[in-house]
Amino acid sequence: MTGFFITFEGIEGVGKTTQVEKAFDLLSARHPGGVIITREPGGTPTGEVIRDIILQKDTGRIDGITEMLLVFAARRQHIQDVILPSLDAGMIVLCDRFTDATFAYQGGGRGVDEQLVSRLQDMVQGRLRPDLTVLLDAAPEVGLARMRERGAPDRFEAETMNFFQRVRNKYLELAGRYPERVHVVDAAREADDVTREITALLEAKGLC
Amino acid sequence: MTGFFITFEGIEGVGKTTQVEKAFDLLSARHPGGVIITREPGGTPTGEVIRDIILQKDTGRIDGITEMLLVFAARRQHIQDVILPSLDAGMIVLCDRFTDATFAYQGGGRGVDEQLVSRLQDMVQGRLRPDLTVLLDAAPEVGLARMRERGAPDRFEAETMNFFQRVRNKYLELAGRYPERVHVVDAAREADDVTREITALLEAKGLC
Repeated sequence: MTGFFITFEGIEGVGKTTQVEKAFDLLSARHPGGVIITREPGGTPTGEVIRDIILQKDTGRIDGITEMLLVFAARRQHIQDVILPSLDAGMIVLCDRFTDATFAYQGGGRGVDEQLVSRLQDMVQGRLRPDLTVLLDAAPEVGLARMRERGAPDRFEAETMNFFQRVRNKYLELAGRYPERVHVVDAAREADDVTREITALLEAKGLC
Repeated sequence: MTGFFITFEGIEGVGKTTQVEKAFDLLSARHPGGVIITREPGGTPTGEVIRDIILQKDTGRIDGITEMLLVFAARRQHIQDVILPSLDAGMIVLCDRFTDATFAYQGGGRGVDEQLVSRLQDMVQGRLRPDLTVLLDAAPEVGLARMRERGAPDRFEAETMNFFQRVRNKYLELAGRYPERVHVVDAAREADDVTREITALLEAKGLC
């Protein structure tokens, strides 16, 4: 098989990390050693340092365009060092957040001009786009309630409910724009139900 | 007076940092408290962390586009937090490297498409350009000999002579393209002679 690139998206607290790991276990059982799991921002040593800058509160207020450039810098390194080599080797790549998150968080959430995001997307990714995107969708209230159980909020999590509503709306707008690629999964349900729907989706794609 | 933005450019070892400091002392004597000195990449807490990523060897190989995005991320924060507020307050801002360095190092040196650099310049700076750029010019051999006296090379300094030749050529090309803004100063001479020429230049601009 040739490689297959799957991204998982959604606002905080929708169970994204859990579902990526379940998909990894499922796909790995079928393709031993043929699946990798990675995340953005981060995914490389340089990317993890950049992730720390973006998520830390104590670096001070970060400008929206600065943040977007940092996100794309980490993404570029991640693509060159991890994603492309794995896809070229025929692997399934599962990525916890990718460029849809930039459109949603920096564009929808912070109001950065979407054309700038598009331009950076082309600059950094060339023609690379996910083959499949799983959008875990739930109202911000659901996610925030789950997050509070997890402990201290990072910079993004400290943002207001309005912010997360704008992020969610942009995610749903992207799903409407790219219906072939983006599959919306109702994440307000029990985790097992969500996993079942994602499993069906991966089966329909012939991946398991 | 309104603010005045002066950048100092040149390859490693041409005495840039020394000359920026001398210009600072000279201008400060005339405008007490009205001059600031800053540097790129860096200049803000976020920027200094980014600078460390760019200059360190041990983060591993950094892709040319990643590097450029990091440079512009640091620059954006620097402009928003330091340069624009100082210019708005009527100060003289002396900056050790700015966007010409990105054209020279990432474009000329590493072969990143110059159009990408231009596009990021517009995205990050809007209409902000230096009022005056002092290009300290010398052959790479001169700079490298001086650098070796200073100790261990960082990542850029470990590059080849060819690389520095390409950087120098791009700097000179920029000077040819923007003759009103960029003044080429022969930096192969004694430091005092270089300082005298820069002083004359600042006097001609009515700054001291």
